[in-house]
Amino acid sequence: MKMTAYFDNSATTMPCEEAVAAAENAMKNSWGNPSSLHAKGTDAEKIVEDARDAVAAAMHCSSKEIYFTSGGTEADNIAVFGAAERMKRYGKRIVSTEAEHPAVYEALTKLETEGFEVVRLKPDSSGKISESDIYDAVTRDTVLVSIMAVNNEVGSIMPVRAAKRAAAKAGSPALIHCDAVQAFGKTDIRPSLLGADLITISAHKIHGIKGAGALYIGKDVKIAPHVFGGEQEKKIRPGTQAVPAIAAFGAAVKALPDIKEEEEKMRALRARMLSRFEEIGDIVVNSPDDALPYVTNVSVLGIKSEPMLNFLSSKGIYVSSGSACARGRQSRMLKAMGLDAKRLESPVRISFSRYTSESEIDYLCDMIELAKKEIRATAR
Amino acid sequence: MKMTAYFDNSATTMPCEEAVAAAENAMKNSWGNPSSLHAKGTDAEKIVEDARDAVAAAMHCSSKEIYFTSGGTEADNIAVFGAAERMKRYGKRIVSTEAEHPAVYEALTKLETEGFEVVRLKPDSSGKISESDIYDAVTRDTVLVSIMAVNNEVGSIMPVRAAKRAAAKAGSPALIHCDAVQAFGKTDIRPSLLGADLITISAHKIHGIKGAGALYIGKDVKIAPHVFGGEQEKKIRPGTQAVPAIAAFGAAVKALPDIKEEEEKMRALRARMLSRFEEIGDIVVNSPDDALPYVTNVSVLGIKSEPMLNFLSSKGIYVSSGSACARGRQSRMLKAMGLDAKRLESPVRISFSRYTSESEIDYLCDMIELAKKEIRATAR
Repeated sequence: MKMTAYFDNSATTMPCEEAVAAAENAMKNSWGNPSSLHAKGTDAEKIVEDARDAVAAAMHCSSKEIYFTSGGTEADNIAVFGAAERMKRYGKRIVSTEAEHPAVYEALTKLETEGFEVVRLKPDSSGKISESDIYDAVTRDTVLVSIMAVNNEVGSIMPVRAAKRAAAKAGSPALIHCDAVQAFGKTDIRPSLLGADLITISAHKIHGIKGAGALYIGKDVKIAPHVFGGEQEKKIRPGTQAVPAIAAFGAAVKALPDIKEEEEKMRALRARMLSRFEEIGDIVVNSPDDALPYVTNVSVLGIKSEPMLNFLSSKGIYVSSGSACARGRQSRMLKAMGLDAKRLESPVRISFSRYTSESEIDYLCDMIELAKKEIRATAR
Repeated sequence: MKMTAYFDNSATTMPCEEAVAAAENAMKNSWGNPSSLHAKGTDAEKIVEDARDAVAAAMHCSSKEIYFTSGGTEADNIAVFGAAERMKRYGKRIVSTEAEHPAVYEALTKLETEGFEVVRLKPDSSGKISESDIYDAVTRDTVLVSIMAVNNEVGSIMPVRAAKRAAAKAGSPALIHCDAVQAFGKTDIRPSLLGADLITISAHKIHGIKGAGALYIGKDVKIAPHVFGGEQEKKIRPGTQAVPAIAAFGAAVKALPDIKEEEEKMRALRARMLSRFEEIGDIVVNSPDDALPYVTNVSVLGIKSEPMLNFLSSKGIYVSSGSACARGRQSRMLKAMGLDAKRLESPVRISFSRYTSESEIDYLCDMIELAKKEIRATAR
């Protein structure tokens, strides 16, 4: 039997048993339309509302503040466009970062064509945004600040909390949006801690299934709609809810282990991996030391990402060179961090989940060591 | 064991076994991110592309013209906003109908606030839009025509085909959009027959699962993006694809029976039902005789919709008073058809699927007969 090891959990995760079972139940038994007024509809509605309660509990907010979407991208779009449209009467300045996921980054680029001024803060060489840059950038006429909680490529933790304080200091009415897709379920994501009005999360990054995400909208926060149609999700996200994926989302949230214990395990796995990488040599770590330990970005000097990924994939090991959504193009994030050419051509993102084991780590390290011999030999 | 009979197939359908099995396989085995470049990603990508081929085959178009979305509402929004944004340089007139689903209707209302002129054609008393009204409404500066294929409330079949001809006659560059959510899988929906540039379809109306739809975009048709993010679906619908729901969509399309044979069966079931309704009395049919036989809207005179729905639901029979997306508000469609007050307060929509049986029809008729006695008795 071929050994496999999945290290691309920042791209997507294996659905947990609980999520699969919940989706199966929704498909086989509770397949009514949650908006239908008969018993078959209310049965499906109950599943959606149970999932909403589970997500709200995990975020320590009210269920009324959770709006289900089809995923992180839709939630980001609804937040960014909805906030900009609603707030433009107060100003047209938006503060964000070069580190954002394309769902925020590209939405902001679209807003630039509509006359918004978008300030994109640069990460430092370790992938972090500085608090003082946030304070400097947020002015009185800033109407939206959008900063991710944890970067998807290097795992750097961003000082999102500074945004609300910076807005208060500047006397700005800015809404604070946080894309927490890579952070939710791995670190404590709650509106009060982040000082965020809008928070994006996604199911398939926490062992749910693809097709569900959520947007937290604080109870006093008003945004303009971006999608139009029926009455679902209080008209913030009209369209029949994806009940199986939402059921799986709720089940996946309920199945989340203790965040702190899990983080310790991840830290130990990372330490084991990095110590092997040091022995192997020529591997530079692009992630900061205080990154969320689930994501480690390294450059294996002298071996380009593509042959490395192909070699590892042939051995049943799945890693990535960066964001899956960017499909192999050179990383905007790593460029913004100022990496030199040798590191830029050879990034490997290794991302863990609670299913990652020590033996998988050892296998990965063995195969990277082998890759260094075999790929270099071929290249000669 | 309690008898149940589901007659709300216009709201949603029971997933077929093939769809459930395909979603299960995607969740349990092929759960990679289709954008990931390793084997686990290409495995998931293959599932998405197989489903795309199945949908394209059913619509007699190229797979390259099929874009997966999270459902009908998202597809409608992408089509309407994308066409309007792209075409506004040529004019700001849009022709549509009063019969449209809220996903089109409300999107057009939003465009009105942006300076578009939206002409909404009225259905006649049988729920149909007239061809000559379409010819009259489409002018040289019309840039978009959006007309549904089959109405969701009464099943009337719309003369979509006239739109392209009307545009040609007027010398208009208008794009033609057709919301075919209620028609796809039940009647022949192909771009060449409809003369449509953009066609919306949805999985959960044809025994797929909730969370997937598709937009057909003709190969020479250009629309502006409405959602921003990664590279998925050629940037028309960025965001990780909902692989389980898309897999189920493909399987549901492959499992579709012969459309013409099925329509004959539906016609026979409808005839059986309507002949019983005539015996029962005081039941007025709001659907036209030549409606798609899957949907029959009737008014049971003297009994308001809500008590009727509740009574039937208590007997395990699931019908609706109109669109699920409108949640019990009085029907815009039936009002536009000019129904009198007595008929407007008592609509019941009975919608069939290939799983509908004669015995279910008989049970429905028995229970409507009983409802007439019991609800009227209580009301006294």
